[in-house]
Amino acid sequence: MNYKKIFTEIENEFPKMEDPGRVPSYIPELGSIDPEKFGIHLATVTNRNYSLGDSDEKFSLQSIAKVLALTLAFKLEDENLWNRVGVEPSGTPFNSLVQLDFEKGVPRNPLINAGALVICDVLVSRLKNPRHEFLEFVRNFSGNPNIDYNMKVAESEKQTSHRNAALINLMKDYGNIKNDIGIVLDFYFNLCSLEMTCKELAHVFLFLAAHGTHPKTKIEVISGSKAKRINAIMLLCGFYDEAGEFSFKVGLPGKSGVGGGIIAVHPEQYSIAVWSPRLNKKGNSYKGMKVLEFLTDRTQSSIF
Amino acid sequence: MNYKKIFTEIENEFPKMEDPGRVPSYIPELGSIDPEKFGIHLATVTNRNYSLGDSDEKFSLQSIAKVLALTLAFKLEDENLWNRVGVEPSGTPFNSLVQLDFEKGVPRNPLINAGALVICDVLVSRLKNPRHEFLEFVRNFSGNPNIDYNMKVAESEKQTSHRNAALINLMKDYGNIKNDIGIVLDFYFNLCSLEMTCKELAHVFLFLAAHGTHPKTKIEVISGSKAKRINAIMLLCGFYDEAGEFSFKVGLPGKSGVGGGIIAVHPEQYSIAVWSPRLNKKGNSYKGMKVLEFLTDRTQSSIF
Amino acid sequence: MNYKKIFTEIENEFPKMEDPGRVPSYIPELGSIDPEKFGIHLATVTNRNYSLGDSDEKFSLQSIAKVLALTLAFKLEDENLWNRVGVEPSGTPFNSLVQLDFEKGVPRNPLINAGALVICDVLVSRLKNPRHEFLEFVRNFSGNPNIDYNMKVAESEKQTSHRNAALINLMKDYGNIKNDIGIVLDFYFNLCSLEMTCKELAHVFLFLAAHGTHPKTKIEVISGSKAKRINAIMLLCGFYDEAGEFSFKVGLPGKSGVGGGIIAVHPEQYSIAVWSPRLNKKGNSYKGMKVLEFLTDRTQSSIF
Amino acid sequence: MNYKKIFTEIENEFPKMEDPGRVPSYIPELGSIDPEKFGIHLATVTNRNYSLGDSDEKFSLQSIAKVLALTLAFKLEDENLWNRVGVEPSGTPFNSLVQLDFEKGVPRNPLINAGALVICDVLVSRLKNPRHEFLEFVRNFSGNPNIDYNMKVAESEKQTSHRNAALINLMKDYGNIKNDIGIVLDFYFNLCSLEMTCKELAHVFLFLAAHGTHPKTKIEVISGSKAKRINAIMLLCGFYDEAGEFSFKVGLPGKSGVGGGIIAVHPEQYSIAVWSPRLNKKGNSYKGMKVLEFLTDRTQSSIF
Repeated sequence: MNYKKIFTEIENEFPKMEDPGRVPSYIPELGSIDPEKFGIHLATVTNRNYSLGDSDEKFSLQSIAKVLALTLAFKLEDENLWNRVGVEPSGTPFNSLVQLDFEKGVPRNPLINAGALVICDVLVSRLKNPRHEFLEFVRNFSGNPNIDYNMKVAESEKQTSHRNAALINLMKDYGNIKNDIGIVLDFYFNLCSLEMTCKELAHVFLFLAAHGTHPKTKIEVISGSKAKRINAIMLLCGFYDEAGEFSFKVGLPGKSGVGGGIIAVHPEQYSIAVWSPRLNKKGNSYKGMKVLEFLTDRTQSSIF
Repeated sequence: MNYKKIFTEIENEFPKMEDPGRVPSYIPELGSIDPEKFGIHLATVTNRNYSLGDSDEKFSLQSIAKVLALTLAFKLEDENLWNRVGVEPSGTPFNSLVQLDFEKGVPRNPLINAGALVICDVLVSRLKNPRHEFLEFVRNFSGNPNIDYNMKVAESEKQTSHRNAALINLMKDYGNIKNDIGIVLDFYFNLCSLEMTCKELAHVFLFLAAHGTHPKTKIEVISGSKAKRINAIMLLCGFYDEAGEFSFKVGLPGKSGVGGGIIAVHPEQYSIAVWSPRLNKKGNSYKGMKVLEFLTDRTQSSIF
Repeated sequence: MNYKKIFTEIENEFPKMEDPGRVPSYIPELGSIDPEKFGIHLATVTNRNYSLGDSDEKFSLQSIAKVLALTLAFKLEDENLWNRVGVEPSGTPFNSLVQLDFEKGVPRNPLINAGALVICDVLVSRLKNPRHEFLEFVRNFSGNPNIDYNMKVAESEKQTSHRNAALINLMKDYGNIKNDIGIVLDFYFNLCSLEMTCKELAHVFLFLAAHGTHPKTKIEVISGSKAKRINAIMLLCGFYDEAGEFSFKVGLPGKSGVGGGIIAVHPEQYSIAVWSPRLNKKGNSYKGMKVLEFLTDRTQSSIF
Repeated sequence: MNYKKIFTEIENEFPKMEDPGRVPSYIPELGSIDPEKFGIHLATVTNRNYSLGDSDEKFSLQSIAKVLALTLAFKLEDENLWNRVGVEPSGTPFNSLVQLDFEKGVPRNPLINAGALVICDVLVSRLKNPRHEFLEFVRNFSGNPNIDYNMKVAESEKQTSHRNAALINLMKDYGNIKNDIGIVLDFYFNLCSLEMTCKELAHVFLFLAAHGTHPKTKIEVISGSKAKRINAIMLLCGFYDEAGEFSFKVGLPGKSGVGGGIIAVHPEQYSIAVWSPRLNKKGNSYKGMKVLEFLTDRTQSSIF
């Protein structure tokens, strides 16, 4: 596949394209990012790499990091994990508290906030020092010791996230949070504050394109069967209320974050990270979505 | 892939396996079916075929037929179709009326009942004789003149389906149904009464495994890009509130019906139809789901 | 109480007061009413009467008539009635379909549309000719043979009321409608098309101010205990999502209709009918609410 | 009215009557109460008193205390209060989080938990030492210096009330809580821990039966117009999802608490406090409801 040619087309068209999206203001530390940033990195399972723009600049993973927490929790808990969180898409965002209440504190899936909080609670139960051990897990399997949290961002979110506090308290009320709420929230905000460049992010996620074993370090991050299942969860639940749209137009498992990043995975072929801070109304990077639609359209690349 | 060997294993294990599912009683004509029926047919895009059990016996497609109606409506309306129906999964069934009301009469996707009713309304607007022309469309592209409706089943459903009448009236109230409610419901019940054998069903759906062109008749049923999108919709919305579970465990686009049938498609490889009338609590064939999980597990076959 | 003086004040202030309300357009026959109409009639249990404005002109009762249907159904069914409909306020209008679905087809109370449809179903079961017998019931106890339906209005509503069709179909699905949907809806639209003048309306409702026995005809319409309970239901459920507001500001049991009428009852003292066609955003007569607030404020009249 | 005779009947029948209700276990300190406790006190505005059973034993007011907090907040804020909380009944409990989210953090009324938390937030803003000043307010107007909080109960609730934490965090997210969440919750739990005997409780609430001025101390607690409005709110919102039922069967404004107490007020006549710890499924004292139904039935006493 001539990714090089397509990347040139993207470079010519997208950076200057008008962008009606907006940088979210509710996390102060994220609000100060240059909205013009634009980077992409595609890494194949056979170790070919294609980059453009600000692909070597760190940005905040935010919800993208939930996939990595899920990976570790699934590895540790096996199928028991699904007693505490579902694998179904969540429907409209307006429903989040409704459904959580209706379904007695069991979140629909591990990629919505409520589900990620349960995943964090699992890791807090399982690990002695979750903050440290989780970071080591990611650094180790990816062979990248430069990955780290951004404490300012973590702190900034903690001050403002009353809705997450509402969600976790409701789940605690239903008995689906086992640890102290403050400790779980603290780990959650650290998790979301993980920073990577597009290149780093694409490389970290390569294990999901390669049956669970990282192609560079050869470490089995998770079994092939579990990797397949994480991809299925990303496809169905990775883009909030736009999962269907992304699946419909792009056709790859993926996950977005309010930091403007998107990761997508084509099993057996590649992983691709895009970063552009302005978000559409559904909370996903406006240009990120467009770029991936363009790329998969040109390459006829899709799991369908 | 040695499908023959796997089919022998299925034949040895599944028919006698205990089945906690139940044949639904709310459509009288369907309630009288022998619950022990069990048939499978797998057809590859290269014209290889594998069958077992009652694979040559006709059964009622029910909701599976919605995919065929969607195909024709998408072909006729192009992207305009999505002004009247979404492509997002629906969340819990408990929400169906809630969401339809909250989203002002626009159904979440074309495979839930509300969405299929809108699709039927589109076809009633577009076709002179929708009942006849739709049937000819399916017979023609599949090269199978033996496909037909079952009028008794259509009539039986019409008597009992007050919830569908509630849905269509609510959408009419919001202006998202253009034709007479009685005519649209009538066409809808005919559509759901379509009958096929597993073999016929697998062959009909081969176009979705072959970029939209039927491998036998060489007829382009729909464009490759649209075929891809229909597969995406099936994956996200094909199994009511169990779409995530099916995607998680089987990993193929598919659609189930309360007649006990399931169709699944592996793009570029095969389509497979399973029939077993007892349904699990989510309304999907209990054994049908298990068989497909077993098959994709053994063949390591999945789009993820 | 010097009602005469207060009526003079009302006559001086209210007719010319600015009215931001709007005449609803969804029932064509009602849309053509002169929005400037304004009438009031207060009738005491001791047969004193105070009128002003267009108090002798007929208008469409609409939902006000639901109280009279409830009265007859409660009389016929006694406590059994409450197996099929509740006595609790309904919360927001946005919830109407949600709650009906969540509570398995049992409406919250007999004054919301769903509840009134159940009441109509009860009367269709109980009466040979519900349309005729119900009218005779009202004419008889009030001693007024001039009360009648308006067939044009009934017909006009039937054409447009898809949401009521959605509600009744949902209840039929849950088994809470026993008769043919068309027959029940037909009776319901007739019921809502009842016409009275303010004077007639105030006189009809006097039985609820007089322990159930009509002070003029001396007919026991319903027992004192039941009259008390109907008043309680009106107070809690008579003004859609503004019941609390009305109770808070006026403090009397009452019921409004989209025809612009409001009836209110002060037990042991009087009933009062107000008519002014422009409705506020909650669907209640804008000036009607204001007039009643003014009157009860001046007279220090309230059940609290 | 021969209350004495009726009290004798109650004493003969109710204490030994079977009680299917249950003492709630979620507040540990309340779970240890003797479920057989049974007390009543009726105080008239003309200073006549009728007691029976354990009417001189202190019990935990719980939600009953919300009416007293509302009284002080309404007095301090006047009509501004209604910008932050509504006066409409709330519908089903299942809705509490839904509606709060749908209505953007504005609770339906001041007597549901969310609304009482807003009231507490108002008092925290208005008072230098809300815990102390609120207590002085109640002690002062009632002339009873023996009223006090129970710190053990307050502490016990604080440990377990994750749902209240969910509610207040959601409101904070919407900007409808101005102060620190911990401080507001702390005051809320103190408020609910207020203890009184039936006699004390009936005497405290006499101001609502007497146009806002306490008949014993002659202190104007609140204006007559505001007292009327608080009564209206109690009638519509005082019994969770059983407000309609209570209004329907008893016909008096009132408020219940999970401590097993109920206060009810007959304007211009009396206030009555009942205490019996076993609660029905809606969370209201089983025998308390029955006693009040019996009493108002015998005395033909009702505002309707």
